[in-house]
Amino acid sequence: MSPRPQMLRHPFAELIGLRLESAVNGSSVTALDVHEALLNPHGVLHGAVMYALADTGMGAAVYSLLGEGESCATIEIKLVHLAPLANGRLSCTTEILHRGRRAVILESELRCEGALVAKALGTYSVLGGGTAPAVTGA
Amino acid sequence: MSPRPQMLRHPFAELIGLRLESAVNGSSVTALDVHEALLNPHGVLHGAVMYALADTGMGAAVYSLLGEGESCATIEIKLVHLAPLANGRLSCTTEILHRGRRAVILESELRCEGALVAKALGTYSVLGGGTAPAVTGA
Amino acid sequence: MSPRPQMLRHPFAELIGLRLESAVNGSSVTALDVHEALLNPHGVLHGAVMYALADTGMGAAVYSLLGEGESCATIEIKLVHLAPLANGRLSCTTEILHRGRRAVILESELRCEGALVAKALGTYSVLGGGTAPAVTGA
Amino acid sequence: MSPRPQMLRHPFAELIGLRLESAVNGSSVTALDVHEALLNPHGVLHGAVMYALADTGMGAAVYSLLGEGESCATIEIKLVHLAPLANGRLSCTTEILHRGRRAVILESELRCEGALVAKALGTYSVLGGGTAPAVTGA
Repeated sequence: MSPRPQMLRHPFAELIGLRLESAVNGSSVTALDVHEALLNPHGVLHGAVMYALADTGMGAAVYSLLGEGESCATIEIKLVHLAPLANGRLSCTTEILHRGRRAVILESELRCEGALVAKALGTYSVLGGGTAPAVTGA
Repeated sequence: MSPRPQMLRHPFAELIGLRLESAVNGSSVTALDVHEALLNPHGVLHGAVMYALADTGMGAAVYSLLGEGESCATIEIKLVHLAPLANGRLSCTTEILHRGRRAVILESELRCEGALVAKALGTYSVLGGGTAPAVTGA
Repeated sequence: MSPRPQMLRHPFAELIGLRLESAVNGSSVTALDVHEALLNPHGVLHGAVMYALADTGMGAAVYSLLGEGESCATIEIKLVHLAPLANGRLSCTTEILHRGRRAVILESELRCEGALVAKALGTYSVLGGGTAPAVTGA
Repeated sequence: MSPRPQMLRHPFAELIGLRLESAVNGSSVTALDVHEALLNPHGVLHGAVMYALADTGMGAAVYSLLGEGESCATIEIKLVHLAPLANGRLSCTTEILHRGRRAVILESELRCEGALVAKALGTYSVLGGGTAPAVTGA
């Protein structure tokens, strides 16, 4: 599960320093400055931090389209790692590929200084509320 | 990338309270007590923490089979969420499905009090050293 | 999308020789005899045939639980290849890991003479009808 | 496993009518005209045919970069279905996201008349030969 754009209290985001920079019209940007507490024994960013950026970004992108009384939950995400990262500002841009009535497909790209370092493809379920019209992008 | 079984300093594991409980013969167990700092705005464990257990567990399972001068890196993991978790002890059991010379396929099951809450299927690459003989399990 | 257990006319299954051997209580078995028309230029079974066994098997497993007026559709499947296959009888056993009201998570194992040759982890959506109670297995 | 660009005899491609239209510099295009023999009981294209376009296209994209004595094999592909397809010309464009020495990450987009109907994210291993220099795209 993932944060609403308005960012209620989000303890895990605070713990790792994750910021939700925008969430509008089914797109979002999350970001984070790599710091020592997020590294693994190889001295590079733990993959779970990249997963956090994608998962929180996907949730925020879905919420940007939901109506009153609706919420969403992560079903699954595949995250592929393209390059290790030891420092710098990591940002994650998320887009919706398809919105069905009850399932939403999203894609995230994680970049550091322009270079693609990871990519994610995920599925969310929409819970509660009415059924918004389906829209497809890309 | 992921920790050696002997667990050199692992800042991210320390940050979230992740423990490597065993890593031997291509299997591993990681565990964590759910606590408030790991929750998302819905009041349940952030999915990235489950990813951390799987990714660290997979890395440890691979390292348990590597020789001198070899290391490994995560290529990709798909994580599927089966149930939300608000508290309790989460444990993650990882097994190798296939070891090729340069790619290893692994599977992780995450459970809380016996109930399956998430499952992961991942691919690691083996770097450096000689080429160990391929073994297949499951 | 995937066939009902009662197997209405299924042109693609006929084309490749895919058989639905059972589909009951959220589990299914599909099978196929590897033959020359299904090979790729390397002389081994094309991965898409393994995908066909998993996808058709997952659909049949879901249908075995659906009520009147309900149908299902594949959202996504990850298929991992563990060993190439040049001949023999390939069978695929599918189980439901979790059934939510609108999304079902399934797992398939493909074996030839007992050896695991591929594994799949997929998500289906349930369409139409009422909302059956959620059940979780594994 | 997947065909070389020059397309040696490929029985499964012939069976389903799959064409390799181009494969150069790590990119490829595969295509197919939807016809009745490829449909499932819902009267829409079986998902395995989409997998075939992606898998063959990814293999061809990798082969376009390989040297003498090298070959490749599919490790895993996640395929997400965005829209059902009952007829028309389906084309699949594949790009390499990252080429390591022994693992290649690729992405495929499947379109019919411009509309995105499926997307795939896959991992290939490179076998034999020397080790070509790593290149990253996207």
